Amino acid sequence: MSQQERKAVIILSGGLDSTTCMGFAKEAGYELYPITFDYGQRHRIELNNARSVARHYGVEDRFKIISLGFLRDFGGSALTDDAIAVPRSDGDATEQEEGEIPVTYVPGRNLLFLSIATSFAETVGAEAIYIGVNALDYSGYPDCRPEFIAKVEEVMALATKVGVEGKPISIKTPLIMLTKAQIIREGIRMDVPYQLTTSCYNGEEKACGECESCRLRLKGFSDAGMADPIAYS
Amino acid sequence: MSQQERKAVIILSGGLDSTTCMGFAKEAGYELYPITFDYGQRHRIELNNARSVARHYGVEDRFKIISLGFLRDFGGSALTDDAIAVPRSDGDATEQEEGEIPVTYVPGRNLLFLSIATSFAETVGAEAIYIGVNALDYSGYPDCRPEFIAKVEEVMALATKVGVEGKPISIKTPLIMLTKAQIIREGIRMDVPYQLTTSCYNGEEKACGECESCRLRLKGFSDAGMADPIAYS
Repeated sequence: MSQQERKAVIILSGGLDSTTCMGFAKEAGYELYPITFDYGQRHRIELNNARSVARHYGVEDRFKIISLGFLRDFGGSALTDDAIAVPRSDGDATEQEEGEIPVTYVPGRNLLFLSIATSFAETVGAEAIYIGVNALDYSGYPDCRPEFIAKVEEVMALATKVGVEGKPISIKTPLIMLTKAQIIREGIRMDVPYQLTTSCYNGEEKACGECESCRLRLKGFSDAGMADPIAYS
Repeated sequence: MSQQERKAVIILSGGLDSTTCMGFAKEAGYELYPITFDYGQRHRIELNNARSVARHYGVEDRFKIISLGFLRDFGGSALTDDAIAVPRSDGDATEQEEGEIPVTYVPGRNLLFLSIATSFAETVGAEAIYIGVNALDYSGYPDCRPEFIAKVEEVMALATKVGVEGKPISIKTPLIMLTKAQIIREGIRMDVPYQLTTSCYNGEEKACGECESCRLRLKGFSDAGMADPIAYS
């Protein structure tokens, strides 16, 4: 198989991290198969961003949006359940304690995303799945840790036809031990289109600049000595 | 927490095996939370059967059907892809060789089912997930093996809030090492409503009696010395 034919599935949210994964997968020489999950996030901007990113990389035709409306039905997270408030960074009482699992944790989310990506990878013949998890900024999320990713790879090797046949799908986590500033420097080096992304939890037209996710992003650009190309309200 | 409040999620297809799992979970004293996956199977009879089984156990109100239409979109299995023929047991040329993975294998299916069941279990506070996998009759399916199930439990312990907090969700596989005849004897002892189930791959009103799945079922009843209560064409 030639270098050009190697395929990778990229779990793409339209945020900064997953879009940087598109850059890493492209740089590694993969044909890109982006997959986006519509899990009843409170806003639609992410999905539009993901599509714009896919278009930027010339792969809109094979970009897939997977509807997981049942996650909203299950509830249990501030990102999918209207009854739970999204924390802000300004001392909001709903913010979690140090070491606690955040209210924005979606139960079993990354396991679910990786399972679906595995089915997709197996059917298109992709050898790798990229996921933009990060163990530094999201240390409270159990499913962003390296030991979780390693264990899912072991499961995938046992669960899939390609794994049983000796060619298991690998999970690529190029961001997992990078700071936000390091991610952004790498992304800018690879011409990742950050102007198309947003990281805001609150889903307004303009990013709020105040939620945990906006705050991390802005600090990342600042630490990297770069300007964030998107608008804030 | 009292015995009555212990909850289990049961992955219910409306077939013989998963319906027997309802019996095992009830016998173990669990409140039953059945979950059924609509993954573009070729027929709708399974979904109706699953609902009838939930009704039989008095839990129709909390019975959930989860739509996974994207699996049909992915293709890659005789059960979801019209381009791949379902094998019959009469020497059809599409039947797999000994030791090969069957064409009815759905890529990554049980990993996906267990991932969704994990999200559901975590949000309802269930301590166990029942899945009717069987390592004897389905030895060609990589995701029916005990080592796969054990590894998924390890992943779930790492990936979930309850796992991190020291109360991981367990996966119950009461059928995994039973013959079909043993499953049926246990089910009849527990008054499992086999008259509501079908196992046929071909999805006609009456079971075909000829596909691999019908054949296994009929042999199971025969070996158990019991009559199968459903009609065959």
